[in-house]
Amino acid sequence: MNYGIVIRVLGILLLIESVLMVPSLLISVYSNGPDTRGFLIGIAVSLVIGFFLTRFKSDNKQISVRDGLSIVTLGWLMISLIGAIPLYYSNITKNFTDAFFESISGFTATGASVLLDVESLPLGVMFWRSFSHWIGGMGILVFTIALLPALGIGGFQIFKAESPGPVKGKIAPRIKDTAIILYITYFSLTCLNVIFLLLGGMSLFESILYAFSTVGTGGFATRNNSIGYYDSTYIRLVISVFMILAGINFSLYYSIFKGKLRDFFKDGELRLYLGLLVFGTIAVALNLYVSNFGDLKTAFKDSFFHVSSMLSTTGYTTLDFEKWPSFSRGILIIFMFIGGSAGSTANGLKVSRILIMFKVIRRGIIKIFHPRAMVPIKHSGRIVTNETIASIYSYISLFIVIFILSTLLISLEGLDLSMSASLVLATLGNIGIGKGFAGFTSEFAGLAQSTKLLLSMLMLLGRLELFTVIALFVPKNWRGEL
Amino acid sequence: MNYGIVIRVLGILLLIESVLMVPSLLISVYSNGPDTRGFLIGIAVSLVIGFFLTRFKSDNKQISVRDGLSIVTLGWLMISLIGAIPLYYSNITKNFTDAFFESISGFTATGASVLLDVESLPLGVMFWRSFSHWIGGMGILVFTIALLPALGIGGFQIFKAESPGPVKGKIAPRIKDTAIILYITYFSLTCLNVIFLLLGGMSLFESILYAFSTVGTGGFATRNNSIGYYDSTYIRLVISVFMILAGINFSLYYSIFKGKLRDFFKDGELRLYLGLLVFGTIAVALNLYVSNFGDLKTAFKDSFFHVSSMLSTTGYTTLDFEKWPSFSRGILIIFMFIGGSAGSTANGLKVSRILIMFKVIRRGIIKIFHPRAMVPIKHSGRIVTNETIASIYSYISLFIVIFILSTLLISLEGLDLSMSASLVLATLGNIGIGKGFAGFTSEFAGLAQSTKLLLSMLMLLGRLELFTVIALFVPKNWRGEL
Repeated sequence: MNYGIVIRVLGILLLIESVLMVPSLLISVYSNGPDTRGFLIGIAVSLVIGFFLTRFKSDNKQISVRDGLSIVTLGWLMISLIGAIPLYYSNITKNFTDAFFESISGFTATGASVLLDVESLPLGVMFWRSFSHWIGGMGILVFTIALLPALGIGGFQIFKAESPGPVKGKIAPRIKDTAIILYITYFSLTCLNVIFLLLGGMSLFESILYAFSTVGTGGFATRNNSIGYYDSTYIRLVISVFMILAGINFSLYYSIFKGKLRDFFKDGELRLYLGLLVFGTIAVALNLYVSNFGDLKTAFKDSFFHVSSMLSTTGYTTLDFEKWPSFSRGILIIFMFIGGSAGSTANGLKVSRILIMFKVIRRGIIKIFHPRAMVPIKHSGRIVTNETIASIYSYISLFIVIFILSTLLISLEGLDLSMSASLVLATLGNIGIGKGFAGFTSEFAGLAQSTKLLLSMLMLLGRLELFTVIALFVPKNWRGEL
Repeated sequence: MNYGIVIRVLGILLLIESVLMVPSLLISVYSNGPDTRGFLIGIAVSLVIGFFLTRFKSDNKQISVRDGLSIVTLGWLMISLIGAIPLYYSNITKNFTDAFFESISGFTATGASVLLDVESLPLGVMFWRSFSHWIGGMGILVFTIALLPALGIGGFQIFKAESPGPVKGKIAPRIKDTAIILYITYFSLTCLNVIFLLLGGMSLFESILYAFSTVGTGGFATRNNSIGYYDSTYIRLVISVFMILAGINFSLYYSIFKGKLRDFFKDGELRLYLGLLVFGTIAVALNLYVSNFGDLKTAFKDSFFHVSSMLSTTGYTTLDFEKWPSFSRGILIIFMFIGGSAGSTANGLKVSRILIMFKVIRRGIIKIFHPRAMVPIKHSGRIVTNETIASIYSYISLFIVIFILSTLLISLEGLDLSMSASLVLATLGNIGIGKGFAGFTSEFAGLAQSTKLLLSMLMLLGRLELFTVIALFVPKNWRGEL
């Protein structure tokens, strides 16, 4: 392993983080908040460690897959650890575990919270929480679109090789250019979201925070009742639409920008994603309506909001849907598993993987009648190799195995099985809805510290597409045998 | 489609069924039971319809895959329908749906029951229920080992091609010989089970019935408290051991018989199956012990019984394990999904498929470091083709999709999500444990008729390896386009 470069890059990441804390510090100073000390310590620590780490030199400029994985996993961990400092030193949380949980929940765009009262938070911390979603969402975009394929990571070949038409995974020939295009898209979506929220009468501060959380598909809110606080149909609609937009493959926006509308609407993943939204909204709305959960209009509004929130793995709520009929809750749980599109800020199994899965089932049926037939599986007009299919299944299997084992582990704390499963799904899928899907995220507060740490790791695992993290912990990897 | 042959074979199956009802009739007459009329009607109906159907002739002697699928699926359905007649006409059940549910639960070796009091059943019906498990178990053996590979059904290539060493899927070169070998094994296991139960002081009648249920991995009991009625450690141990034996690939017994002990113990599926039993028993026992569910000895006894019952998909219980701690219940639920070995009378996803799944995950991790490496997946010393892996995944995916959709459908009846999921798992996996895993099977009684019919179809789907049934309902199949 090229330790020199890995440590240097981690140092650079820390220096960047210290700069990213400055806006929160300014807000804290400006609002005379009790969190100024926390941000000063945070900035100081990241500056000192960052400066120290960037001193490491390496003559070897080669970066291996191993090095790449280490940078990504350790980088995310380190940024979350340092990001917890302002929370801890502002006495927002009881202990550092809680602060770390809140911080990694932010950077992984999960949105699970251990805080019982977010409305009383100092403004600097409030900004920092939502801002961390946005930073994480930005990081994940470059990671999955530019970095993962470059590192040759399995499950993402689908994105690399099977993007529609002329739009390749990398969009532009160089990673740097791809990153710039993605950032422009991400910025534009965020600005549009702020503007639309402002038009709904929301304050500038809150508009910016919700735009961060929404476009990053995070889910941290500035109100204890999440979006339930805002009674305006307009605001809920705006947030729904932007959650949906954030769950679409970002490279498709580039197709629109280039005037290639056909590429946009021909994309198989996008069609299934939108199809699921429409189907889910109608099914849940009708189920709510016949179960006397309000008139048809209310049913559709509530349904649309939560269906888009869960499929995009944002995790906002406007009510406690744990009280909804089983069928509706079932749909929402399935959508949490499915998640958004590849190459978006959303997480979950990803719509494209589910799409391929259904095509494999279909092939299985055809094969019964024609055992020797070659039945190619196509995705957006291109043939998916058996290699890619195997890596997709390898991903789905690992997701399920981790889901099951973590649920068992957490159940040892004495929690009910369905509660354990909910907690694991909420974190591994980076959704953020709390215990037993009780609607609001504060229910994480009462968990044991060991459980909180396990859930923190699940957030990281889910966000970094599992294998990135798992591979780092394979002993053979340390010994350089793989 | 060759209707002539399909109808003729169905007719033959009915004639066989009429003969199979004779022992029950004799028991009924001998015990002067109220069920004599039911069996007389059953025998008469199957004789008449059977005689009529066997009159169909076909000049074409060719049998296509389509014909094979039709015979298997329709045959199982028809035998269950006719098998319901004695139950219905003996006024055991309220309506024909209930009788059909009970009958298909018997023939698919599920063991889910709508009867609230099985102890008061007339002896003929009591015999018929357990006997149907045994008939079903016998049928499934020939079906999966001899017929499925011959029909070229996808998910079973693993069994056909990857059996250990010289023992091929078909064992003997001709299907007929294979069937005879399997039947001898099945008979021998059943006889041994009867003898061991007799040695424990159980009556001959009950010994035979439990042997039928156990070796067929069914789960119908003659007591309302299932095996909980028998306080003897010996009897519970005998039943556990025979459940485990029934969940082992039957072709492996032939290896033993031929003196090839190495083939037996080298089998990857067997190793994982036994490994799961050992690991599961220890994990659950320790969890029960620390949670104060009895002393260590009791904990191990209870754990061993239920772990073997769930992994072999038999579904016997000795207590209401719904009261057990979450972790233990979690293990049991996972084991229900996994199920027994391929080529046994057990159902579920099958241990071999899970084994391959883990090997695919392992390959996924290796591939991160060596994206271009060829990493062959081996099963018992042979390389598994990508083709076979895809068909295994196609099976697992379809199982999960059917599981999820059925759970949603049943939840519309107003049942709790975890209850719906339990019912679906109990039937699709052919286990038979009831609502909310409440321990005893009688809880199916209160369900809506539509739900009972859906669950009946799930039993059939699960038993016939999904694709067999699904393929029959693909419209293209009817039109002969596939």
